Amino acid sequence: MAHVLGQNQYGKAETRVVRIYRDTTRHEIKDLNVSVALSGDLDDVHLTGSNANCLPTDTTKNTVYAFAKEHGIESAEAFGIHLARHFVDNNEPIKRARIRIEEYTWDRIRTPDNSARFIGSEEVGHSFVRNGGEIRTAEIVYDGTSFQVITGLKELTVMNSTNSEFWGYIKDKYTTLKEAYDRILATQVTARWKHSWSGEETQPNWERSYTHVRRHLLEAFAETYSYSLQQTLYAMGTRVLNNRAEVDEVRLELPNKHHFLVDLEPFGLKNNNEVYFAADRPYGLIEGTVHREGVTPVIPVA
Amino acid sequence: MAHVLGQNQYGKAETRVVRIYRDTTRHEIKDLNVSVALSGDLDDVHLTGSNANCLPTDTTKNTVYAFAKEHGIESAEAFGIHLARHFVDNNEPIKRARIRIEEYTWDRIRTPDNSARFIGSEEVGHSFVRNGGEIRTAEIVYDGTSFQVITGLKELTVMNSTNSEFWGYIKDKYTTLKEAYDRILATQVTARWKHSWSGEETQPNWERSYTHVRRHLLEAFAETYSYSLQQTLYAMGTRVLNNRAEVDEVRLELPNKHHFLVDLEPFGLKNNNEVYFAADRPYGLIEGTVHREGVTPVIPVA
Amino acid sequence: MAHVLGQNQYGKAETRVVRIYRDTTRHEIKDLNVSVALSGDLDDVHLTGSNANCLPTDTTKNTVYAFAKEHGIESAEAFGIHLARHFVDNNEPIKRARIRIEEYTWDRIRTPDNSARFIGSEEVGHSFVRNGGEIRTAEIVYDGTSFQVITGLKELTVMNSTNSEFWGYIKDKYTTLKEAYDRILATQVTARWKHSWSGEETQPNWERSYTHVRRHLLEAFAETYSYSLQQTLYAMGTRVLNNRAEVDEVRLELPNKHHFLVDLEPFGLKNNNEVYFAADRPYGLIEGTVHREGVTPVIPVA
Amino acid sequence: MAHVLGQNQYGKAETRVVRIYRDTTRHEIKDLNVSVALSGDLDDVHLTGSNANCLPTDTTKNTVYAFAKEHGIESAEAFGIHLARHFVDNNEPIKRARIRIEEYTWDRIRTPDNSARFIGSEEVGHSFVRNGGEIRTAEIVYDGTSFQVITGLKELTVMNSTNSEFWGYIKDKYTTLKEAYDRILATQVTARWKHSWSGEETQPNWERSYTHVRRHLLEAFAETYSYSLQQTLYAMGTRVLNNRAEVDEVRLELPNKHHFLVDLEPFGLKNNNEVYFAADRPYGLIEGTVHREGVTPVIPVA
Repeated sequence: MAHVLGQNQYGKAETRVVRIYRDTTRHEIKDLNVSVALSGDLDDVHLTGSNANCLPTDTTKNTVYAFAKEHGIESAEAFGIHLARHFVDNNEPIKRARIRIEEYTWDRIRTPDNSARFIGSEEVGHSFVRNGGEIRTAEIVYDGTSFQVITGLKELTVMNSTNSEFWGYIKDKYTTLKEAYDRILATQVTARWKHSWSGEETQPNWERSYTHVRRHLLEAFAETYSYSLQQTLYAMGTRVLNNRAEVDEVRLELPNKHHFLVDLEPFGLKNNNEVYFAADRPYGLIEGTVHREGVTPVIPVA
Repeated sequence: MAHVLGQNQYGKAETRVVRIYRDTTRHEIKDLNVSVALSGDLDDVHLTGSNANCLPTDTTKNTVYAFAKEHGIESAEAFGIHLARHFVDNNEPIKRARIRIEEYTWDRIRTPDNSARFIGSEEVGHSFVRNGGEIRTAEIVYDGTSFQVITGLKELTVMNSTNSEFWGYIKDKYTTLKEAYDRILATQVTARWKHSWSGEETQPNWERSYTHVRRHLLEAFAETYSYSLQQTLYAMGTRVLNNRAEVDEVRLELPNKHHFLVDLEPFGLKNNNEVYFAADRPYGLIEGTVHREGVTPVIPVA
Repeated sequence: MAHVLGQNQYGKAETRVVRIYRDTTRHEIKDLNVSVALSGDLDDVHLTGSNANCLPTDTTKNTVYAFAKEHGIESAEAFGIHLARHFVDNNEPIKRARIRIEEYTWDRIRTPDNSARFIGSEEVGHSFVRNGGEIRTAEIVYDGTSFQVITGLKELTVMNSTNSEFWGYIKDKYTTLKEAYDRILATQVTARWKHSWSGEETQPNWERSYTHVRRHLLEAFAETYSYSLQQTLYAMGTRVLNNRAEVDEVRLELPNKHHFLVDLEPFGLKNNNEVYFAADRPYGLIEGTVHREGVTPVIPVA
Repeated sequence: MAHVLGQNQYGKAETRVVRIYRDTTRHEIKDLNVSVALSGDLDDVHLTGSNANCLPTDTTKNTVYAFAKEHGIESAEAFGIHLARHFVDNNEPIKRARIRIEEYTWDRIRTPDNSARFIGSEEVGHSFVRNGGEIRTAEIVYDGTSFQVITGLKELTVMNSTNSEFWGYIKDKYTTLKEAYDRILATQVTARWKHSWSGEETQPNWERSYTHVRRHLLEAFAETYSYSLQQTLYAMGTRVLNNRAEVDEVRLELPNKHHFLVDLEPFGLKNNNEVYFAADRPYGLIEGTVHREGVTPVIPVA
């Protein structure tokens, strides 16, 4: 009985590359985790054991390192575009490349010591402390014709200590939740947004775009008086679309990091929205896409 | 400028429910982690702040616990089917429910003590040690008409210490990998397989089906003389389809857990495929779907 | 045959308490993870099953929440001192309490929106983003007579992209490492420092002390031209002792987060200290204590 | 102002070594994670930047791999003894070595296929599935004169679904816990036990000793009718000492993995100890040492 080989892909995942720019004593760092997934004419690899069409995953790793030198890493997106184009355009059997990148950012250490060893100002030119905030993400897909670039972030944890309510919901026989008129709203944002750029024109300024999208997400979270995390999600997505023309789709995954008011009455104390238990599991999980009219959304559901 | 709310869903994730059956002194355990995702007529929740159509995630959690009592947990799949049907059939705005479940299994502790406190044989009726092997998974989707059931497992780590080669691949300017004629092949299996059952007929015996699919995956891994992990992947998928009529699609994600031969020559020693460095990152990642002819695959790419 | 019950302790670990101060529209957050360990006259609990001397761990959890309201959380250290004193002074069988705290810090979200809803300046009074940098730690031990306070931090990742060498070491038959005259030095700092305060005098300003010790650790890391991570460790420890009179012992655990130069010669490229592989495991681990003369170190080896 | 360098140590942590024995077609695997910590005359390394007394951590890694070939890995303990003796006896400045090892165990895959490729019986000689149960641990310390060997395990999760009570404890103003007369008792065992062997006599059979200690821990957990986790802890420790003459000290860390009865009354259901919420945090943490009379305990408190 014949079976069919369906979607398949392969490549080296999580190649950790750090690129230092040492052109002046004020060094620059790019710190990436790069995952390559290739697909194409790979039936024989699966079916007959012939590897004639298989570019080894070890080679995709080497290419990441070589390109970090040859092309530099201007941004995760630009680097991924270089890689994706290379794999498809230079290997006949490879028809599609997907590059996923995590980027870790570093801040400069400042010190009052202005000795000759260091550059002016308080920055130490070669000393960095890892910024422990969100992880930046980028996904670049190239099929030999056009590109699809999805930028994102994850592990960005935010909290509003007021301006959040939740009431007026369905009550069925399993409902015990009390309506809330002033609650903490906290979430760990995972966001992905698709750029309209598909390869024809000059690339956007990816770094600047990221900075602004992140800012709009934070501001929308902070400024929205919320009746549900869903409503906040929609406000965050539309805020980005309203302000960044280069983005045409936003996908958000927002776990509701519940902070439960602790009942202090057994101890003769009144809890005026002051003392909370920060719970781990279970958590509400709110997910949604907001996109421009006429655009077909492409960011997959997790 | 109007934007469109695209795919969206919400629910309580990771509700940890343990169900003990105490009908005899030989207790039984079902230990699940249940995640609910609901979708339907939820535009107002996002756009206007009205929660009139919103069944709270807290209620979905309560329902999990109540159903564990009311319906019991015969299997993760049957439990998920109960839940999915309930949410869609009893809440007009809810049009689709997706239930994801992780199942942790427990073995019985055995002891020679046959005192009256315990049941016959060496098993202690109420004492268990968690089986630290693979985690079972199940995903049930119901849209009011039919069901889709995808069973799976993850974190099943396997190794062949021989019978694996890798050579004859593409060599480009970035290729340094040496061909291998006897290497270790190790991977941590993530597998998902779709059942053909969609709700019309009697449910399959989910527990028995799982046991056999798992066995076929392991046997195919062990018995395949491998020229690539891709080839092993295809062998594993087809083995399941050949032996289990209730399954019509298999998706596998196989990270290549590299074991690199350590170069011992600097120490005057010869490494006859005996001493390996087990690497963490990067790793090859091989993914693929095998399905029956005529079946449209539905398991999404991760 | 009689056996002896040796050191033992118990308590509730990882109670997650979030305290919001809402006195003005500019809210303040304290976000702690509190672990209590009590010891004393607890032999009967272990030997006879009598719990007459056992304060339940659930009660220690409740006390954490109640104290967050009753005493507030001025600092992790002050909060731990309140708790430790309470458990020992109010429970006759409890002779010693150890409180361990992790503290997660939050930054304010800024937004240009100065609507009436928010306070002046660009800060949103009730909106926060979690500072993903280091986790602060505190350990308070009280035995009914005196206190021991150890403050610390962990997960502070730093890197020098130059000014680090390593050579002149022992070469034995298993040595293959090449001497390095310009390498990356990166580590994830775990630091603990003991305060000389033991309960008699007014408590130090814990928050200010922390800020300064952290700053000295970072500056010493940045400013030390390093011949080994050991040397950097010693420089960091002495820098703290030289500048902070309230500290008399510093313990550091510094994993050497290796960044290996990638060999690009097979690709016809020269790697001028620009492209690195950031390795996970194995890693060098350098640990050491620096303390004032005459002080007996107390911070335990991990 | 002079400061003092106190306790310090260094070495390569987490060297992952896999040793395959291929003497017959029935291969054997030893899979270890080895961490080396050396101490001795290392002041200059910290103070002056001279590395003359420093054996590089890279060399300690190499030694692990070379010894896996030269001496084989009969057991984690024997392997650690080889390493510790080597570092101290062959490097004048090194006065003390501590070797910590994690061991991951593998089971054989069985298959009915008895083709010539495989050995007799149903076992495949070269195919393994990782045993996901507990991780074995070993710590060997050598100071040039005598050895100290502490064997252990972690991540062994066990549950009794009855035969556990908890009542009769202290009630203070912060106590709300209800007494329990039939509760679930679950814990994730971390155990360490010291062998009396210190180097003079023939080494014990480490593998056999481990098997039996593990069995006694499990049996004592299963057979103890428990009035507190402390009581169970003591029963587990004494069971080992009573049965294994080679062990003279046992240290246990037992997190109380709370399973809370879910209140089903709002749904008109009665919960007869059947449906539980498995909580993550906070958790009770019970720790204790049991040792033979006259033996000074040495296993440190975590």
